[in-house]
Amino acid sequence: MSFNTFGHVFRFTTWGESHGPAIGCTVDGVPPGLPLDEAYIQQFLDKRKPGQSKFTTQRKEPDLVKILSGVFEGKTTGTPIQLMIENVDQRSKDYGNIAETYRPGHADITYDTKYGFRDYRGGGRSSARETASRVAAGAIARLIIGDTITIRGAMVQMGPTKVNRDDFNWETVHKNPFFCPSAVTAESWEKELTEIRKAGSSIGAVIEIVAEGVPAGIGAPLYRKLDSDLACAMMTINAVKGVEIGVGMEAALLTGEENADEMTPDANGNPVYLSNKAGGVLGGIATGQPVVCRFSVKPTSSILTPKKSITRSGDATEVMTKGRHDPCVGIRAVPVGEAMMAIVLADQILMHKAQCG
Amino acid sequence: MSFNTFGHVFRFTTWGESHGPAIGCTVDGVPPGLPLDEAYIQQFLDKRKPGQSKFTTQRKEPDLVKILSGVFEGKTTGTPIQLMIENVDQRSKDYGNIAETYRPGHADITYDTKYGFRDYRGGGRSSARETASRVAAGAIARLIIGDTITIRGAMVQMGPTKVNRDDFNWETVHKNPFFCPSAVTAESWEKELTEIRKAGSSIGAVIEIVAEGVPAGIGAPLYRKLDSDLACAMMTINAVKGVEIGVGMEAALLTGEENADEMTPDANGNPVYLSNKAGGVLGGIATGQPVVCRFSVKPTSSILTPKKSITRSGDATEVMTKGRHDPCVGIRAVPVGEAMMAIVLADQILMHKAQCG
Amino acid sequence: MSFNTFGHVFRFTTWGESHGPAIGCTVDGVPPGLPLDEAYIQQFLDKRKPGQSKFTTQRKEPDLVKILSGVFEGKTTGTPIQLMIENVDQRSKDYGNIAETYRPGHADITYDTKYGFRDYRGGGRSSARETASRVAAGAIARLIIGDTITIRGAMVQMGPTKVNRDDFNWETVHKNPFFCPSAVTAESWEKELTEIRKAGSSIGAVIEIVAEGVPAGIGAPLYRKLDSDLACAMMTINAVKGVEIGVGMEAALLTGEENADEMTPDANGNPVYLSNKAGGVLGGIATGQPVVCRFSVKPTSSILTPKKSITRSGDATEVMTKGRHDPCVGIRAVPVGEAMMAIVLADQILMHKAQCG
Amino acid sequence: MSFNTFGHVFRFTTWGESHGPAIGCTVDGVPPGLPLDEAYIQQFLDKRKPGQSKFTTQRKEPDLVKILSGVFEGKTTGTPIQLMIENVDQRSKDYGNIAETYRPGHADITYDTKYGFRDYRGGGRSSARETASRVAAGAIARLIIGDTITIRGAMVQMGPTKVNRDDFNWETVHKNPFFCPSAVTAESWEKELTEIRKAGSSIGAVIEIVAEGVPAGIGAPLYRKLDSDLACAMMTINAVKGVEIGVGMEAALLTGEENADEMTPDANGNPVYLSNKAGGVLGGIATGQPVVCRFSVKPTSSILTPKKSITRSGDATEVMTKGRHDPCVGIRAVPVGEAMMAIVLADQILMHKAQCG
Repeated sequence: MSFNTFGHVFRFTTWGESHGPAIGCTVDGVPPGLPLDEAYIQQFLDKRKPGQSKFTTQRKEPDLVKILSGVFEGKTTGTPIQLMIENVDQRSKDYGNIAETYRPGHADITYDTKYGFRDYRGGGRSSARETASRVAAGAIARLIIGDTITIRGAMVQMGPTKVNRDDFNWETVHKNPFFCPSAVTAESWEKELTEIRKAGSSIGAVIEIVAEGVPAGIGAPLYRKLDSDLACAMMTINAVKGVEIGVGMEAALLTGEENADEMTPDANGNPVYLSNKAGGVLGGIATGQPVVCRFSVKPTSSILTPKKSITRSGDATEVMTKGRHDPCVGIRAVPVGEAMMAIVLADQILMHKAQCG
Repeated sequence: MSFNTFGHVFRFTTWGESHGPAIGCTVDGVPPGLPLDEAYIQQFLDKRKPGQSKFTTQRKEPDLVKILSGVFEGKTTGTPIQLMIENVDQRSKDYGNIAETYRPGHADITYDTKYGFRDYRGGGRSSARETASRVAAGAIARLIIGDTITIRGAMVQMGPTKVNRDDFNWETVHKNPFFCPSAVTAESWEKELTEIRKAGSSIGAVIEIVAEGVPAGIGAPLYRKLDSDLACAMMTINAVKGVEIGVGMEAALLTGEENADEMTPDANGNPVYLSNKAGGVLGGIATGQPVVCRFSVKPTSSILTPKKSITRSGDATEVMTKGRHDPCVGIRAVPVGEAMMAIVLADQILMHKAQCG
Repeated sequence: MSFNTFGHVFRFTTWGESHGPAIGCTVDGVPPGLPLDEAYIQQFLDKRKPGQSKFTTQRKEPDLVKILSGVFEGKTTGTPIQLMIENVDQRSKDYGNIAETYRPGHADITYDTKYGFRDYRGGGRSSARETASRVAAGAIARLIIGDTITIRGAMVQMGPTKVNRDDFNWETVHKNPFFCPSAVTAESWEKELTEIRKAGSSIGAVIEIVAEGVPAGIGAPLYRKLDSDLACAMMTINAVKGVEIGVGMEAALLTGEENADEMTPDANGNPVYLSNKAGGVLGGIATGQPVVCRFSVKPTSSILTPKKSITRSGDATEVMTKGRHDPCVGIRAVPVGEAMMAIVLADQILMHKAQCG
Repeated sequence: MSFNTFGHVFRFTTWGESHGPAIGCTVDGVPPGLPLDEAYIQQFLDKRKPGQSKFTTQRKEPDLVKILSGVFEGKTTGTPIQLMIENVDQRSKDYGNIAETYRPGHADITYDTKYGFRDYRGGGRSSARETASRVAAGAIARLIIGDTITIRGAMVQMGPTKVNRDDFNWETVHKNPFFCPSAVTAESWEKELTEIRKAGSSIGAVIEIVAEGVPAGIGAPLYRKLDSDLACAMMTINAVKGVEIGVGMEAALLTGEENADEMTPDANGNPVYLSNKAGGVLGGIATGQPVVCRFSVKPTSSILTPKKSITRSGDATEVMTKGRHDPCVGIRAVPVGEAMMAIVLADQILMHKAQCG
């Protein structure tokens, strides 16, 4: 019944607050003998790291990971791997105001209601800073799923502007600060987000994560479905409000004829699917087609426009958030979504081995 | 690591196949002393029962529940409650064809791939018949959450036709065969679905489940969030392809200003929210506002139009499904969604008591 | 956090009360394709069945098991297996006295304290009748561990009389009503227990369970040790008060020299152990030697001698228990201990496959 | 299915190797608002710390604990508490020999078999050093169980010499280096263990842990019994080979009359027990009497006498262990046993609140 653990065979437990001495996670269930060092994990953390463009928070965190256990002579030992990332840029400031008021649309008030008080420094445990631990755990998960599975993510919508699918190119994703797979769309987002940033506003987004090469048969009925695990995983990411597999919410629009992914046999009698409405999952089990998952990310609640709120003592007030913030937190959710996909797949692969291996 | 269990303190484990002797579930963690008998559970099962209109499958199942344990002198004892529903209408027929071919868009092929073979009779374990167990468990969950929380569900979209929100009335839900909250929309659906049924086709839908009276503070960061539990729960329901909380996928469209649910204090200094974009959850914890969850249901794969497929032995074939079927399985997903909402809330309430009670 | 589930990959959840309509269990995580039918399970249940000699309770229960799910065409499907055993001999009688008083040394009072009331009929959920479900689950566990592992149990002490080790013979176990491995000792027990039974008294025992052929490497540090899983498993059996692995409590007596199980290499360089003080487990992981587990079983609290007690309303009283009872419940604990050994090994084998397979 | 986590609501996950940079644990499920700082935990660690007398290993470890998360302004926040203890005295030496041979009676060989290789430095993960994390977690558990429950441990047997029960005094425990409750026995142990230490030998022991004030009703049938949780907990401690509750293995000797703990009502009608054969647990649920648990600890395998063994490459060899070691590891198991008792009780108390609170 852990509140801070995800996964069943491959399990990780995160800990740490935004402005405490460090954050990190314990990764359990990792098979022995996998090559692992800090440099390997670091490359994934660097992708998520804040302050890489003017479009993400200007907090300066090197996000250097230390491996404290579970690795010996460059290989995993099968024992728990402890990863620690020290917090460096805990800007000293007066939290007095934040401590006593609740930001509309932020978890300030619910943590306080649940626990009777909260670590208000930078959002404490509710900060998106926690997602660095997921990215680190995801790097280890990738060692388990291996090279035959590729996981790629992209931001496919920002505000009302969707990516031009005709121009979709995975290579483009790393050539702009938005993880945008379309050069055309990226250009338009650059303008839009510059405006939003200058206005001290923020905007929502949709992220798409695609895993190719997932072996057919991975996943499990009925309460460990591959798609229910993914829905759970993505919905645990800060600010996510919706999760879709394959056609997603638009499944409502389809007839049975439209929705049926027809099959023909290949030369070996194996199925070749003619479409992928299912997003690679039927009955909770992978079909072997690409697993396609999308999720929406709400705009950050840290904005410059004053909004009505209340104080801890129950008085009316107005709140606006000065200082560094993410005009579109969806951007940094891309590597986090990739990590969660890797984690779910690693866990499902090990679970499948347990029962059917 | 159970594949067939949902929940942590309130836990239920389902078992049974569509055409085996019975289906059922074990419900564990139920507090002692709650009044419970079969008649109470039966009323919820009756709502989900097939064959109640021409728009659901014509399989005749009385779905009579038996309590085999955990209740003594009309009260729960704190020990596991075993619920059994015997299968009655296992129409004897030749399954030969179904056994050897895969229906496009159905879990036939993935079960076979995962396990090496499958119980093909009526879908076996992948049949929506399993959801009867959820409805029974949900009835018990409602005893835990009590009368101050109300859970209501409705079908709010069928194909392209959305419910007219101006005409939304919870009272209307039980006055038409669609659980439709709008009399106007229900009338139009009646025509549309009659056409679809006659054509041997099927159509998707969107279901909305709303829980009112959920106490603020229920839920938990970070991997037991109220919304990630709901996303997981709903995505485990057969045919669901997307889950939304509050604004859902449309969070992408909003600015921070639009998304911020402003608050003013009431006479006691408690927050009165001026909107509910969050759908009642912030940081994974309930705000006290209505918890709003929507999910899409794909059209059933059992249709009369022949579709390309392959046989178990890898030959090309065409498949069409004769006989009883659900032209819109979304209809019967409404009581199932309500049950899953009740189950998630019961579990979260008990978990909250454990740590913060 | 289930109170009624044991195991992690191989998991079983028991349900049912002594005098309810039925008892049973759900077995989850079973690999697909294993041959299984009711007759196979029945042979293990028959071994535990009451009323087979004058030395066990005279309750007449055929203990016929029904498989309600998870098996198709004679093979496990990978989905949960539901086993049900109907209660037949629920002798109708006046429970009034038992309902209002607590038997000294019995769980009557603690169930009442915990839950506020209890199902007092025949001990309800605390009855040893529940162990029939374990034996049924254990039969399935044996399919997973396979023929290369043999599990055998024996009663090795009854009261002060220990089995003569010089006369120890596994073949003898099934030739007397005590599962006693020594013909000499069995003869002496026959006399002793006849006296005890006539006196309406009862006596304690020690059971030994030995698993041979357990593969080296099974088990896991640190909180899923093979020996801690066994200790937990055996201590969940009714009336067990102590559990030992290898030398057990007598480890206290040994020096490091005496305790060291020396090794020499065989022709292939594999270890040949010269002793087995460890009982087949080092650091929680199997060495490949026989896994040896012993546990003590206290005498049943149902005796004819009046003992001081209190009533539910807090008055002083005396309690004696008439009617059928077990003069040495240790006897029927032998097949239960074997089943729990099989269950722990099956679970550990599947867990090992998950991480190291 | 974590291999490194113990507990259900109160959960802790340990990590770290004997000679890595640090060890530690994550404690989850802790209620918010409890006062906690490093100095409080340190006092328990100091009790377990090595090198406090000539009778424990001479490794010099300050065992200073750092709290990295979960505490804010001196109080627990309800989020996971990360505790880290840096390893200081990792004596640099040539491990070549240990790396290539297996100590008889040590987990060297089983780790190697399970994982394919191992961190051989000081025993790696199998080192008793891991128990420092348990003691730290136990300190937090004590905050949950509160002042009305007292937990005390003592070494009650060393080799063949048992504590003189007539001379038993809890006050004496902290006045000798053995946690011995009898001054007379302590004196005799001083001589015996001095001899053993000089001879480079080692000896086993029995530890007794008693919890007084445990509320009746704590604990749960059937697979979360208070006594099965204790048996599991104690058997996870390094070198433990047997666990007893109440009369323990001697239950075998008793008749039903002897075993029955009679009751009389007090002035309020509550039970006053006339004996405690049960060790405070009936049917897995606490009676309110002292919970009495004993466990045996085998002698350490690090001894100066050469013993037959094999090398990794399968050659015959002899092994003796020079350098610092514990002549009676049972001594340092006392605070560890107390910690595990506190952890089990804290978990059971929170679980009870969840279902019956």
